[in-house]
Amino acid sequence: MTARTADQLPHIVVLGGGFAGLQFCRSLPPDVARITLIDRENHHVFQPLLYQVASAGLSAVDIAQPIRGLFAGRPRFAVIMAEVTAVDLANRRVRHSRGEVAYDYLVVGLGGVTGYFGRDDWARYAPGLKSLDDALHIRRQILSAFEKAETATDPAERAALMTLIIVGGGPTGVEMAGAIAELARKILKRDFDHIDPTRARVMLIEGSDRLLRAFDPALSASARRQLERLGVEVRTGVSVEDIAAGRLTVAGEVIRAETIIWAAGVAASPLGRSLGAEVDRGGRVKVRPDLSLPDHPEVFVCGDMAALVDPNGVAVPGVAPAAMQMGAHAARIIRRELAAGATAPGPREPFVYRDKGTMATIGRSAAVAQLGRWQLRGTLAWLAWLCLHLIFLVGFRNKLAVLLNWIYSYLTYKRGARVITGASGRPPGASA
Amino acid sequence: MTARTADQLPHIVVLGGGFAGLQFCRSLPPDVARITLIDRENHHVFQPLLYQVASAGLSAVDIAQPIRGLFAGRPRFAVIMAEVTAVDLANRRVRHSRGEVAYDYLVVGLGGVTGYFGRDDWARYAPGLKSLDDALHIRRQILSAFEKAETATDPAERAALMTLIIVGGGPTGVEMAGAIAELARKILKRDFDHIDPTRARVMLIEGSDRLLRAFDPALSASARRQLERLGVEVRTGVSVEDIAAGRLTVAGEVIRAETIIWAAGVAASPLGRSLGAEVDRGGRVKVRPDLSLPDHPEVFVCGDMAALVDPNGVAVPGVAPAAMQMGAHAARIIRRELAAGATAPGPREPFVYRDKGTMATIGRSAAVAQLGRWQLRGTLAWLAWLCLHLIFLVGFRNKLAVLLNWIYSYLTYKRGARVITGASGRPPGASA
Repeated sequence: MTARTADQLPHIVVLGGGFAGLQFCRSLPPDVARITLIDRENHHVFQPLLYQVASAGLSAVDIAQPIRGLFAGRPRFAVIMAEVTAVDLANRRVRHSRGEVAYDYLVVGLGGVTGYFGRDDWARYAPGLKSLDDALHIRRQILSAFEKAETATDPAERAALMTLIIVGGGPTGVEMAGAIAELARKILKRDFDHIDPTRARVMLIEGSDRLLRAFDPALSASARRQLERLGVEVRTGVSVEDIAAGRLTVAGEVIRAETIIWAAGVAASPLGRSLGAEVDRGGRVKVRPDLSLPDHPEVFVCGDMAALVDPNGVAVPGVAPAAMQMGAHAARIIRRELAAGATAPGPREPFVYRDKGTMATIGRSAAVAQLGRWQLRGTLAWLAWLCLHLIFLVGFRNKLAVLLNWIYSYLTYKRGARVITGASGRPPGASA
Repeated sequence: MTARTADQLPHIVVLGGGFAGLQFCRSLPPDVARITLIDRENHHVFQPLLYQVASAGLSAVDIAQPIRGLFAGRPRFAVIMAEVTAVDLANRRVRHSRGEVAYDYLVVGLGGVTGYFGRDDWARYAPGLKSLDDALHIRRQILSAFEKAETATDPAERAALMTLIIVGGGPTGVEMAGAIAELARKILKRDFDHIDPTRARVMLIEGSDRLLRAFDPALSASARRQLERLGVEVRTGVSVEDIAAGRLTVAGEVIRAETIIWAAGVAASPLGRSLGAEVDRGGRVKVRPDLSLPDHPEVFVCGDMAALVDPNGVAVPGVAPAAMQMGAHAARIIRRELAAGATAPGPREPFVYRDKGTMATIGRSAAVAQLGRWQLRGTLAWLAWLCLHLIFLVGFRNKLAVLLNWIYSYLTYKRGARVITGASGRPPGASA
């Protein structure tokens, strides 16, 4: 390949600085193309730990990494903080809130948004957990509910203020329920004068017959027992019929609850529907085996936006490792084609998902992990979870900060981020 | 003194969990009275480091401490998170947003608010720095301005986006200007593709003829030189004539600046004016020598809300050490009177301010400090500043987190908290 000046290099536009987008940029050598990464935030968020920000264990900054900082000094690399508004496939251009940009290759990895299965009106009363702002909103909500309970005089109102319901028994719901139960029973225990936070009612609702459906049934049962030991009321096989301000209807029963958290559904970024390809029920784009868009080999869709059954018959799940593997796969294909230059490259390799396991933490020394044929539960699973999350957390400073926060909380039964910021004004999802 | 049951103990209500209020609670032995502390936030903020949150050096949580956590387990101690609305001196009751409460003694330490000398309309365009939310707002503002500059196409607009003006040359203004200049010139330097953050224009405006008027003139001159070395444009002896959206008029000149920060004035909490006593121009209550309210020996006003010239002729400044000393003084008096019981106590001791020195940091290895007759500048002053702030920062976790952040920034020239949260929606001061 002959040397080309920067302007002659092909231009790759990457939409989204999540796991897929970042891994793509890291996997592609800096000298083969110009890259422009567009994200509406200035930071990458380590989503698997969002629930710890929401439950006051970590500060927002600990799990976020400024995107510019990650690639500072890398040549031919630009970052635009803007909202992507449209992709013009025919003319190979991306329009965003601050202008537009042309591409030779496009990598779309905008992830997902909280999905309410057609009940978007529930979003106001039951916020989801997809961004730092969501997490800070939920933290404010939880801590403020206990503050209000402390001065409430009506017993029914006090009970409602101390009732917290999590809808959705996947990993996020399980982790959130465990963390909230621990917050109330262990951390806030001695903080109040008129209420007893250990009597808070924490309920986890799952529509199917068991928690953590992606895990082995034995682990689902273990997760349930571990949650119940923390005092969480687990209800499976019941569906939420309605959600309104401070009340939720499940299986015909109306429960008053100040705090309702939605962990039941994720829908792909709405941009997926505008790409002209078929989408599934969750709005995910049905990509070709190589992750490209049908009829547009120059466009790749990666991460939570892509719907794919791989050659082994595995429906690729919407988890961080899958997104990273997809980003790396797209980078490998593009790199090979750029190296081949004018020569037509051979057929593209299909994406094969390598499942390295899944885990969910429930609380102190409580977790479940499925690593291939291995199953872990309790302390061992919890330690495995801690190590893996530290290793994959982006940025040395964040690793250190999170490690110290964890050690501190473990030793003192306190949580450092028990701070209410951002006033009461912001409606849920205002920034989403 | 005979043992009394808890209900017979006198009740002390403390308004505000700032330096004065916390020090009061700590100084009073837990067995002499019941205490109720009322604050509208759930956390104490270490105000001297707010500017580092605003300039993306620290995360909000690092300098905040949940108030309940500080006194968890202390008997006869209640915390109410509510806004104080009125004090009924005649009936000895405090009304707040969640109810009301009677007191035997009242300690008022609500601190200050940003003051605009009658130009409250400027608050929208030039936010102040009094709370965590203010600091997060300013951080978002600064980082977003650079993000917008990166994609701006009009050179004049780009220049305006990269102009940051700080109004007020006291410690907060000096520290803020230094931190912003360092952020632009050292930290963001390599982050952008189309703009050169080292060419950002950072201007510090002071109406009087020198910066840091509370310091020796030699230190004022040193601070100015140290700021100019960082590239800050220092203008003294000029006054701000007008502030509007994105523009500031100083000495007849209109300067376009996306970011304007107000560090020029502090006014006492407006509640001071409702206490029936004389107030000074800044709304501070003219207290008696023992810090009590004229005609109400059971009410003490401490910290930034109190106006007092002590027996040595020193006008007590509105700084954290003075607030802490006042809180301790009020606790000493009340403790003595409670111990004396029915016996009429002798005349009260007047408050005497012990000035242990003042310091302001400008940047890496740049600071000024006045410790009695000693003057420090440069690296030595900076090290003294670092140590003292770490020592006085409340909470072990926070000390450790801040120390590690500082070490990290020092070694890497990065700032961990370079994260934009909270979207664009919130108007400045919405939570103030």
